Amino acid sequence: MDIDIGGALAETASPGVSRDALETLDDAVARAHNRIQRGRENDEHGYAALNLPEQVDPTAIRAVTDGFDDIEAVLVAGIGGSALGAAAIGKALDLPIYTLDNVDPAATDRLLASLPLEQTVLVAVSRSGTTAETLANFLVAREAFVDAGIDWTDHTLVITGESGPLAGLSETNDLPRLAVPEGVPGRYSVLSAVGLAPAALAGADIEALLAGGADTAATLSDSLFACPAYAYGAVAYALDIRGAGVNAMMPYAEGLETFAEWFAQLWAESLGKDGLGQVPTRALGVTDQHSQLQLYRAGPRSILVSTVAPETRPSVPIPSADHEALAYLDGSDLGELIDVERRATTASLAAAGRPSVELSIEAIDPRPLGRLFYAMEAACILAGELYGVDAFTQPAVEWGKRATRGLLRDEDTPETRTVRERPSLHIEAERRS
Amino acid sequence: MDIDIGGALAETASPGVSRDALETLDDAVARAHNRIQRGRENDEHGYAALNLPEQVDPTAIRAVTDGFDDIEAVLVAGIGGSALGAAAIGKALDLPIYTLDNVDPAATDRLLASLPLEQTVLVAVSRSGTTAETLANFLVAREAFVDAGIDWTDHTLVITGESGPLAGLSETNDLPRLAVPEGVPGRYSVLSAVGLAPAALAGADIEALLAGGADTAATLSDSLFACPAYAYGAVAYALDIRGAGVNAMMPYAEGLETFAEWFAQLWAESLGKDGLGQVPTRALGVTDQHSQLQLYRAGPRSILVSTVAPETRPSVPIPSADHEALAYLDGSDLGELIDVERRATTASLAAAGRPSVELSIEAIDPRPLGRLFYAMEAACILAGELYGVDAFTQPAVEWGKRATRGLLRDEDTPETRTVRERPSLHIEAERRS
Repeated sequence: MDIDIGGALAETASPGVSRDALETLDDAVARAHNRIQRGRENDEHGYAALNLPEQVDPTAIRAVTDGFDDIEAVLVAGIGGSALGAAAIGKALDLPIYTLDNVDPAATDRLLASLPLEQTVLVAVSRSGTTAETLANFLVAREAFVDAGIDWTDHTLVITGESGPLAGLSETNDLPRLAVPEGVPGRYSVLSAVGLAPAALAGADIEALLAGGADTAATLSDSLFACPAYAYGAVAYALDIRGAGVNAMMPYAEGLETFAEWFAQLWAESLGKDGLGQVPTRALGVTDQHSQLQLYRAGPRSILVSTVAPETRPSVPIPSADHEALAYLDGSDLGELIDVERRATTASLAAAGRPSVELSIEAIDPRPLGRLFYAMEAACILAGELYGVDAFTQPAVEWGKRATRGLLRDEDTPETRTVRERPSLHIEAERRS
Repeated sequence: MDIDIGGALAETASPGVSRDALETLDDAVARAHNRIQRGRENDEHGYAALNLPEQVDPTAIRAVTDGFDDIEAVLVAGIGGSALGAAAIGKALDLPIYTLDNVDPAATDRLLASLPLEQTVLVAVSRSGTTAETLANFLVAREAFVDAGIDWTDHTLVITGESGPLAGLSETNDLPRLAVPEGVPGRYSVLSAVGLAPAALAGADIEALLAGGADTAATLSDSLFACPAYAYGAVAYALDIRGAGVNAMMPYAEGLETFAEWFAQLWAESLGKDGLGQVPTRALGVTDQHSQLQLYRAGPRSILVSTVAPETRPSVPIPSADHEALAYLDGSDLGELIDVERRATTASLAAAGRPSVELSIEAIDPRPLGRLFYAMEAACILAGELYGVDAFTQPAVEWGKRATRGLLRDEDTPETRTVRERPSLHIEAERRS
């Protein structure tokens, strides 16, 4: 992975970070790196995520996934970190991985009706085994198998913790099962069975994904000037506290669109606490040049644009239009056009004094992808240290879960009372026709 | 369309807007409404968008689209406002509308290979007929038809302005052609041929979409307390200037996911100028409760959460899990669960003092969808008046277009010099193994 932070320097942009400020920040990076290394050595909660490439045994995952054959679709029932890693791998590598990560009745119905269930493996992913959305979707999907006259137990893989309803279900029905890794929050679990088992079922080279993670692990060092992953985390943090409260992750590759969603979860849920954190937003180059760029270039000075792109792409020549106004496209290629547009966009941001960072990976292949996932996790953990927040918890989502359970049970609890008593101000149209 | 702004009041949230401040703001809304009405009466640039429901003749669109039959896929080559309206309609109504709105060689190749070209209509949309990405994609797609031995002229519809390469092409090859409406920027064109022709080809009830637009047009009034559309625009503006610089558009329906992208373009490109504007970000309920909610509830107080959901959904009962820990799901339905979770989420934001607005439409059907599109356009135009910016231009994207052309031609221009001289600071890993 390559990173160019030139577009985020104070000599280019405002907000921007000066080279002197980066030198000062590097002392904090060194301290943070020491903390991270200590956490890794002791396999502490969260920090353990950075040990996955050396600890996860792909052979053990394949021993389970090889039990399934004739696979045309992998259906992941999971939500948040239990789905996004597999979804990001699937999108990047063009694998038939589908997710049930919402409880939308129309979308669930459509997806189940569209899949070849006889050739589908259902993967239920929930550490606790009690995640409402995941279990609801699992139950609906299981019934679809039953309704189709298919033995669902031959088509189901469970990835869960040591106990809970999913673990119990796997024991009762003798289902193959893999473990959610201990000490690794879901959003950091892409390089464990959570992300890799669905990927393996769909045909991915999970050994290469893990090797990519190990590649980046070997680059962690006590200076942001010697570590691209830390450079990203440190610069994003420095820009945030200088006013760039929004981080627009903008891949220049359709294949990395779901990676940007994965990144948004990682960044939001890890850093958004104590009133701190940088708001991630997902964009897509070049498409969003015709949607968001006006704002990025001329709106409030609150946005860091992070582009990411592969260095190599397939060749798709652009046929000649035989028209003077389009002569500049003659002899070009879609890949050249998208790369040129990325350069033009980051330069146009610089010309307007707006900050950007450019990330590059060799290609959208498993090993570079593994490097990128790991680098963003390390960047996020580093940023957590710099902010002084715990990057491994998500306490603010518990309230809503309790409220949901209380409302479904029709109970009177502090949460359900708050829901029922929330102030309303409905605006009604006065129809004048 | 229903709107509940109770969650954005100062008595609920910080930032929030007090009822007194809303009364004061309502004077500005009245002035803005007068300006908007004058613009509509004179069909002024931009304001003309609000006249589309009464001016667009669906019969004229159908007279052209009825010329195609045996349609299984509609492929829109367009970008930004030339694609997002059709894409949002297609996603909402589950129609086979596909877009070539990026110049990613891998994705373009895959999409073209996956479509049944014999039953595909190619719709090329560009007002100027010179949009680089759209023309490049059109040329590549046209060649795919030729390579498949299909007469592309029988499969192509052009939507463009009065002159330019696409207009010339349609004349040379006798292609059916519809006009991009005069005075209507692309991001406001969903209720014109730009959005409706692809929708009609794919089977949508475009008369109902237009009728929905007319429904909302009839609700525009000189008070935000009597006009849901203006209430949304005024509250979003009021929250922004009080510190909520981010607007998270969060549909609780998969079908409205692309609507959120359409909204993000509308909001960003219309309002992001002169250093002003609110950064739109796209989220999805309930999925992003497990991704973004931690940040929305406990991160910086810079985020307005706008939820939007249908009031009716198909029924998909959740089968019983026969497990004590999941008993609260027994007898429930995916639709009930998603609705309850929305209520729990907006209440959880309120309990943390974070602002939200709730939008509701009757169902994800053409007429309510038309109401919603029009309402958001009116909201955005109103917000433009309140900010004092021109909501109908996008000057900041021109620089990058010039730079792209210059780079492809290998010219020495002010833009290409800036691109080539942009400061770089590459961070290289020191490999230590």
